[in-house]
Amino acid sequence: MLLKAVHALLLVLTSCCLYSQDPAKVLSSIFDEALTDRTAFRHLEYLCKKTPGRINGSANALLAVEYTRKALEDAGADSVWLQEVMVPHWVRGTEKCTLISGKSSKTDLSIAALGMSASTSKKGILAKVVELHSMEDLRTISRNLIEGRIVFFNNKVDNRLVNTFAGYAGAVRERTAGASEASKYGAVAVIVRSVTQSLDDFPHTGSTHYEEGVTKIPAVAVSTLDADFLSESLKNDPEVKIHLVAQSVIYPDAKSFNVIGEIRGSEKPGEIITVGGHLDSWDITEGAHDDAGGCVQAIEMIRLYKKLGIRPKRTVRAVMFMNEEMSGTGGRKYAETVTRTGEKHYAALESDRGVMNPRGFGFDADDQRLEKLQSLAKWFKPYFITDFDKGGGGSDISPLKSKGALLIGYIPDSQRYFSYHHSANDTFEQVNIRELQMGSAAIASLIYLIDIFDY
Amino acid sequence: MLLKAVHALLLVLTSCCLYSQDPAKVLSSIFDEALTDRTAFRHLEYLCKKTPGRINGSANALLAVEYTRKALEDAGADSVWLQEVMVPHWVRGTEKCTLISGKSSKTDLSIAALGMSASTSKKGILAKVVELHSMEDLRTISRNLIEGRIVFFNNKVDNRLVNTFAGYAGAVRERTAGASEASKYGAVAVIVRSVTQSLDDFPHTGSTHYEEGVTKIPAVAVSTLDADFLSESLKNDPEVKIHLVAQSVIYPDAKSFNVIGEIRGSEKPGEIITVGGHLDSWDITEGAHDDAGGCVQAIEMIRLYKKLGIRPKRTVRAVMFMNEEMSGTGGRKYAETVTRTGEKHYAALESDRGVMNPRGFGFDADDQRLEKLQSLAKWFKPYFITDFDKGGGGSDISPLKSKGALLIGYIPDSQRYFSYHHSANDTFEQVNIRELQMGSAAIASLIYLIDIFDY
Repeated sequence: MLLKAVHALLLVLTSCCLYSQDPAKVLSSIFDEALTDRTAFRHLEYLCKKTPGRINGSANALLAVEYTRKALEDAGADSVWLQEVMVPHWVRGTEKCTLISGKSSKTDLSIAALGMSASTSKKGILAKVVELHSMEDLRTISRNLIEGRIVFFNNKVDNRLVNTFAGYAGAVRERTAGASEASKYGAVAVIVRSVTQSLDDFPHTGSTHYEEGVTKIPAVAVSTLDADFLSESLKNDPEVKIHLVAQSVIYPDAKSFNVIGEIRGSEKPGEIITVGGHLDSWDITEGAHDDAGGCVQAIEMIRLYKKLGIRPKRTVRAVMFMNEEMSGTGGRKYAETVTRTGEKHYAALESDRGVMNPRGFGFDADDQRLEKLQSLAKWFKPYFITDFDKGGGGSDISPLKSKGALLIGYIPDSQRYFSYHHSANDTFEQVNIRELQMGSAAIASLIYLIDIFDY
Repeated sequence: MLLKAVHALLLVLTSCCLYSQDPAKVLSSIFDEALTDRTAFRHLEYLCKKTPGRINGSANALLAVEYTRKALEDAGADSVWLQEVMVPHWVRGTEKCTLISGKSSKTDLSIAALGMSASTSKKGILAKVVELHSMEDLRTISRNLIEGRIVFFNNKVDNRLVNTFAGYAGAVRERTAGASEASKYGAVAVIVRSVTQSLDDFPHTGSTHYEEGVTKIPAVAVSTLDADFLSESLKNDPEVKIHLVAQSVIYPDAKSFNVIGEIRGSEKPGEIITVGGHLDSWDITEGAHDDAGGCVQAIEMIRLYKKLGIRPKRTVRAVMFMNEEMSGTGGRKYAETVTRTGEKHYAALESDRGVMNPRGFGFDADDQRLEKLQSLAKWFKPYFITDFDKGGGGSDISPLKSKGALLIGYIPDSQRYFSYHHSANDTFEQVNIRELQMGSAAIASLIYLIDIFDY
């Protein structure tokens, strides 16, 4: 009993001392601990290997909820709880896409239905194909070239854009809205070139949305290599047909959860700083970079603070959001409780750009606050973390903006991300432990600095 | 004939115009071309898949010489030639390392002999093992704990060091000199923990050197996972024995080549700027990051200049050095010809730190020149290349320093490098095309700027 009391006292003392220390020393202790501990990497391995395909409504998504709840407890969070969220429940079925041309033998293309895509019948669709570059082309070509056909959107990502997210943004619209738009012109299905800078055999899926009232036609992503092959085939033989089977079922919305763990603030417990990633992934992937990595980095922040005796002034939360990929109900649900409970949200950071080495952070702040935040860059110099820019956030935390939270996006190097994104290539093996650790340390350090300096 | 003349005139005009253009536009054209062309990536694939294990004296090293000679010609170099270099010729034989303990069944450890290691007999060595942390321990423990035993150097890389090259430097001495040193104390062989931040199953080899006069004892690298296992086994049973077979043969020095291609300078052809990597690799690896990547980036610089009509004032060379890994004869031979031919070496850049995304460059320059070089950073901002620091170079180009050359090291992100370094894990698949392309563009851009500004 005495020992326990002494231990508790020592913890309090360590904690006070560490918190009033030179920030450079605190950051150094955070990086040292993160770079020499494998807990977060083991969590990542578990989520990838034991709960792959954590799509909304899946058993693995719920296993991941249970696992991360336990991981937050093990990290020493003061309290851990689940927050109920309703999610869409779309389930992929049989898929096959066969190119039929008089000039060559039948060939199967590497495809994957887009999330929430309408299903084909069991027999599938047999139709001619029209290749378009972008959605704009629907308006400019003759309607009878579209009607009854499969529209093949072959919009290549512009690889000249150094920031790969800019390249992605320039080509993703055909995936999100192409099926809905092509349907208006009488297309029977849509095949979309995978939205990636890579030339590879993986179909990269992602969500698609239909406007109210349009006929929902099936939509699939095709690998970039097979997109090139299909395009070449159409040049050689415009009469090419595709036989497309892409079955799926939409069930009633399912019950799922956000997973939340927090360290109670020592001075301003009613002010919340949220750090999050999303726990759901696509069904065809381990979802290592997108976004198991972001989740385990948030958990690691809790572990680092507890292990090192860092007690923040404000309440700091790690949140694993559910349903980022389809309709963002997890993020919205989380923001709603803010309103209900009267919590004040001070800041929110999202890590959902992969587990590459940290380059910095993006801040959705006015110029005055931005200037203060940018002054934090000096503390990160020893870690080669240099980019403190305007603009940032993440889709799960975006509903917190209207609640007054400063939104922060964690920015790792972007070059490799879309090689993995939404594909079977997004595996545990594609994550380097040190890049994960550097990211965890960067995030934990930034939150620590924002809290102590009241930025 | 007239058409040809017009074409030639147009080329000259384009070249002049491009060269007198706004540097920002030239860099933009370099990055655009590099990021949308796959030639360098295909070269890398060839070197990795068709000429893996390009160790000194191997047939694959000579195939790589021939391939890169052709690649330089295809890139449009004004002249391409081979420079004869003599190289050591050490050939790995049968290897097996079995742990024998009364407390467990026999276990084979994952090992690879160090380059230039002495051979065991066919029967091998059976001996007890003494675990030491570092070479210093040889002096402090009782000699009879070493005599007749296998010394196991279990010096872990300090993972707290953010720059992984600093971590490597702190643990590599036991690999390079441990066998020579342990031999003086009567050890019969040396097992060295692989020098990597990773915990993996790959033995990471590398060269070892014996002092003149010492008995050359065999030396092998053990994977980090098996180093931990061996250490644990010794804790449980100090009587553990190792049966080590690590055969190898040293043949007389072999004839090999540096491969050199150049674009003749338009104004100062007698002043040379060299950009290089090394063509040799270890025998157990594809050598993608170390250093096929550096070689193809140098070739790509030539291709970029020719494709874009950039004609440098000075003569710019791409050099594939032979024998970086063992004794640096390629680099020394190249520097010798400078003396012989009276060439003036203006600058030399080496890319031998892997094919990760570029962070910047290191310059071995005095403060005045450094300041000028650092002013170039502004041109690289659109490409997120930010680090322009003092100190840099590379082992192949280091002999050029005494010839007056400014030495430059290309600095990509360092976190992943030693996961691959000198191991079977250094494969083509571990290279991301965009990181390769970004590096090529960064190097070609820096050389262009140094040349036009006379820095």
